[in-house]
Amino acid sequence: MLNAAENKYITQVGPGTPMGNLFRRYWLPAMLASELPEPDCAPVKLRLLGEDLVAFRTTSGRIGVIDAYCPHRNANLYWGRNEDEGLRCVYHGWKFDTSGACVDMPNEPASSRYAEKVKQAAYQATERGGVIWVYMGPAELAPELPGLEWTVVPESHRMATKRIQACNYLQNLEGEIDSSHVSFLHRNFDRTSREGPAMDLDQHPVFFVKETDYGMAISARREDGTEKFYWRVTPFMLPSYTMIPGSIEGGMVFTSAIPMDDETMIGVTVSWRADRPLNDEEIAHVKAGMGPHVQTDAKFNPLRNKGNDYAIDRELQKASSFTGIKGVREQDMAVQEDQRGRVSDRTREHLGTTDLGVIAARRRLIKQARDLEKGIEPPQARNAAAYRVRSAAVTAVRAQPWEEAVKDVMVAQAVS
Amino acid sequence: MLNAAENKYITQVGPGTPMGNLFRRYWLPAMLASELPEPDCAPVKLRLLGEDLVAFRTTSGRIGVIDAYCPHRNANLYWGRNEDEGLRCVYHGWKFDTSGACVDMPNEPASSRYAEKVKQAAYQATERGGVIWVYMGPAELAPELPGLEWTVVPESHRMATKRIQACNYLQNLEGEIDSSHVSFLHRNFDRTSREGPAMDLDQHPVFFVKETDYGMAISARREDGTEKFYWRVTPFMLPSYTMIPGSIEGGMVFTSAIPMDDETMIGVTVSWRADRPLNDEEIAHVKAGMGPHVQTDAKFNPLRNKGNDYAIDRELQKASSFTGIKGVREQDMAVQEDQRGRVSDRTREHLGTTDLGVIAARRRLIKQARDLEKGIEPPQARNAAAYRVRSAAVTAVRAQPWEEAVKDVMVAQAVS
Amino acid sequence: MLNAAENKYITQVGPGTPMGNLFRRYWLPAMLASELPEPDCAPVKLRLLGEDLVAFRTTSGRIGVIDAYCPHRNANLYWGRNEDEGLRCVYHGWKFDTSGACVDMPNEPASSRYAEKVKQAAYQATERGGVIWVYMGPAELAPELPGLEWTVVPESHRMATKRIQACNYLQNLEGEIDSSHVSFLHRNFDRTSREGPAMDLDQHPVFFVKETDYGMAISARREDGTEKFYWRVTPFMLPSYTMIPGSIEGGMVFTSAIPMDDETMIGVTVSWRADRPLNDEEIAHVKAGMGPHVQTDAKFNPLRNKGNDYAIDRELQKASSFTGIKGVREQDMAVQEDQRGRVSDRTREHLGTTDLGVIAARRRLIKQARDLEKGIEPPQARNAAAYRVRSAAVTAVRAQPWEEAVKDVMVAQAVS
Repeated sequence: MLNAAENKYITQVGPGTPMGNLFRRYWLPAMLASELPEPDCAPVKLRLLGEDLVAFRTTSGRIGVIDAYCPHRNANLYWGRNEDEGLRCVYHGWKFDTSGACVDMPNEPASSRYAEKVKQAAYQATERGGVIWVYMGPAELAPELPGLEWTVVPESHRMATKRIQACNYLQNLEGEIDSSHVSFLHRNFDRTSREGPAMDLDQHPVFFVKETDYGMAISARREDGTEKFYWRVTPFMLPSYTMIPGSIEGGMVFTSAIPMDDETMIGVTVSWRADRPLNDEEIAHVKAGMGPHVQTDAKFNPLRNKGNDYAIDRELQKASSFTGIKGVREQDMAVQEDQRGRVSDRTREHLGTTDLGVIAARRRLIKQARDLEKGIEPPQARNAAAYRVRSAAVTAVRAQPWEEAVKDVMVAQAVS
Repeated sequence: MLNAAENKYITQVGPGTPMGNLFRRYWLPAMLASELPEPDCAPVKLRLLGEDLVAFRTTSGRIGVIDAYCPHRNANLYWGRNEDEGLRCVYHGWKFDTSGACVDMPNEPASSRYAEKVKQAAYQATERGGVIWVYMGPAELAPELPGLEWTVVPESHRMATKRIQACNYLQNLEGEIDSSHVSFLHRNFDRTSREGPAMDLDQHPVFFVKETDYGMAISARREDGTEKFYWRVTPFMLPSYTMIPGSIEGGMVFTSAIPMDDETMIGVTVSWRADRPLNDEEIAHVKAGMGPHVQTDAKFNPLRNKGNDYAIDRELQKASSFTGIKGVREQDMAVQEDQRGRVSDRTREHLGTTDLGVIAARRRLIKQARDLEKGIEPPQARNAAAYRVRSAAVTAVRAQPWEEAVKDVMVAQAVS
Repeated sequence: MLNAAENKYITQVGPGTPMGNLFRRYWLPAMLASELPEPDCAPVKLRLLGEDLVAFRTTSGRIGVIDAYCPHRNANLYWGRNEDEGLRCVYHGWKFDTSGACVDMPNEPASSRYAEKVKQAAYQATERGGVIWVYMGPAELAPELPGLEWTVVPESHRMATKRIQACNYLQNLEGEIDSSHVSFLHRNFDRTSREGPAMDLDQHPVFFVKETDYGMAISARREDGTEKFYWRVTPFMLPSYTMIPGSIEGGMVFTSAIPMDDETMIGVTVSWRADRPLNDEEIAHVKAGMGPHVQTDAKFNPLRNKGNDYAIDRELQKASSFTGIKGVREQDMAVQEDQRGRVSDRTREHLGTTDLGVIAARRRLIKQARDLEKGIEPPQARNAAAYRVRSAAVTAVRAQPWEEAVKDVMVAQAVS
């Protein structure tokens, strides 16, 4: 559990908050590249860390992410005309480039130099791996993009999806790094189903945590019914990314929990294989919203959601599914979107042995934010190479230390 | 009228409030038994006195009503698996019985005794009269169920319905004990209609109030156009129950206003006859949502509600109905759900002679809550026999005191 | 820009606020006469300056606008029976006339004089020009109705429409008096279209402001490509009315921004010709919600609104429309309903030379409210004749002062 002050500290992410400031030190995967499909396409509303933004792709293909409201008289630039390397407000024609500079002010006399004095808040944004990344911190501290494997494989090898999830980012992050829940929440008693873990998975794994350059490796040891241990290692990459074994055979999954505000988050999820293109079946799997992906409407709101009880089927729950809810992601959302509300009240928790990773991750986030308050920048934010990591799921003889057993498989295979 | 402090005192019912504490001394009729139709059926969300709860019926048929959120990491137990005498959280498998004890904690090592230390808030609940009753007060003070007549008649003799009403409980309660409004709100100028009072009902009854063991008897005297008086006596049973003559011939109606929170309430309404089963016509009458009953959706939200103006028909209002709204209950809800909002502002009232019962009931509720603050328990809460009462509607010679005139008919005919 | 205190001062309009009090010195065009189509018709909910009211038309045709909630026990009089020169509450039958007097109290004894002591808040209301006007200030200060031209032309010469707009009144008012935005927001590159300004309209007009009896004349001078200037003069009539050249040839348009509360307003818009009846084409134009009018549902909520992105068509925006939004009014609403929210944050503005009129109007409103706080009544409120004004759009030789150039055309042609 956390006390009330800690819970507030770790969950509040708006402008000026310590945790919000920490997030502003990292590149945030916030949009799919397909949301801005072509030069001068329609601008898109984007909300990040409590700020209302508008994203656009310019004539030459640059990505702009700027404050949504025109500095003149607060008209929303979402209505704007995206034309000739800038976004033009429809109210009086002021135009901004991706740096936030006002490059045209047609309602002022030709001789006016007023435009030079007007500057719109603008954030660095770039596209990699089919995803648009946004950096909202001090420009002079902008790091390289993290060297994640999926960002450097060919486009054919990966697929990314996005959802909006109706809870604080931490509830999702905790679920992603907590592999102990897999034995329950995702359990499927129907052995012919492809979804869910093996039925005989050891239900009380023993957890170990190791601090790393990217954040921490969270390792769960399970009895395997043999002379060996079954180890599953989830990298928790700061600020809020994880990697898990993929629902695609031989593939891997990247997840992220990006705060829109205290009560809402964006989840960009990527499935990929390092070694070959995804095949038709795998592509269909992602498009169908299976595994860690999810079916959404055009605005990325999940079709099965709290409003419709995630289409829970109580007969199915009795017959073959632990939850009666179809879809691994929907199962996660059902528990995460209401843990005593959209911001969980962690003063009322009773944590157990399998929560070791969750506890460690919280401590790490709080420490990093406190360090930043003291002026200590988060080192991993500028260590792009540290993110060249994979998750692991291996069996090893009991005597072998887990760090050694997973060392090789946790290295990214594809490097730019 | 009440002053602002009194109005707040009497309407606020959340945890820790004096009025909430008073309600916690009584058994509250909160659900229909049919909401939990069989052992191990799906759990149901329940909100009472500002707390989010989940109700379930165990394998052996016991009713559980416990805090909705798992003490482990706040997952909502509504998603839970109801199996083998307990409700199991789908997140990590913790399981709770009806006492709130954690009876299984499968993600902890077999040797762990952690489960013994975890206790979920749980409330006593039981089924009687086709209704599920919940007691949310101190366990050691739990009284017997009130000896209401309808709870002891055979199932064939009664029918209960439930609705969620979008206002503070007191607005509904005041309407139930105020028989003077019947001459107006429910008036029907169409003499062939079965709904509404007689057209020639005296419009300015004189009120009398008598304190009783169950609360108070509120008596309205009307001129009858004869040598006699027409008396109508409504028992106001603490904390918020009433009884009125039934829309079913020879029957009686029980009503209740159970706070979900300050702005929402549950109304369980029961029609019954003490002496014989309800016949087909009477059953159809209740099922059609006639009289004090109402048509709702599957979640007990009335079909005609504020959002659709209760389907008011202004032509009907001109022609034959005082309100133009069909249904006695809908007429009540139309006025009760917006008396300057969902919590009425009683500082702006102008009470008259026919509000005597309303005034007395408020005073009684406030006094009882203040007594409880001083440590004086409400005596009627543990006087089950006091609730063996009926309402009365009699004519009597003018000289006869009303208490004497109604004495016999106000005694419950069926006693367990 | 305004500082935070000024912005609050000018936008807050609820009971007791200085700006609310200023609005209460003027007759407010709040409803269409057709909302109360006949004597004893159904009452209508009306919200003005933060108060919930109910409007009704009596048997003899008088308009009543009174507090929506019955003084007895706060039942909403909207459910009331409109009969025999008054509105009767359906709860207990209390009846009120247009003065707020309680003229019947049938639940009290015949001898009671309680009704004489009960007084419901009531506001003066009257019909003129197809519109219902409400005066919410001190009765003894009630002025004449403003002598607006369209209120005195025959019914056949005018058409009024109404909309509810989801923002503070000032955002709409600022748009109406800011003719500089016309060159942008309403621009249409399709020269065959009737909507939008001429394509070659000078985009940086020079503004001049002149204080007048009704408020101020806001004059915009544009280069005309000739030896002359093109002048467009918009009268800003206190508290929140304007007049613009009509989308109907030879006609004129009246607009108004009447606060319902801080975040919502009513806009009554009138198109008229002083000299002849509107023809079929012009009537169809208004009924279709063209120009400054708009298509709404039966409760005056615009069909194209923020919830559906005003049906923006991004292809149309690329091809021929500056916004891609159809309808001049919808274009205005798109920018006005979200200028950093429903109450714009004017501390973040960067005003330019074309905002001179906006700045002057704000100053005038604030000054007038401050004067009223000191006891100085707004003089124009009681100068009905001052409102006999028209807008102007004229060309004039450069040397001619604009006041002189527009003097004659700004005089109302029709006077009662």
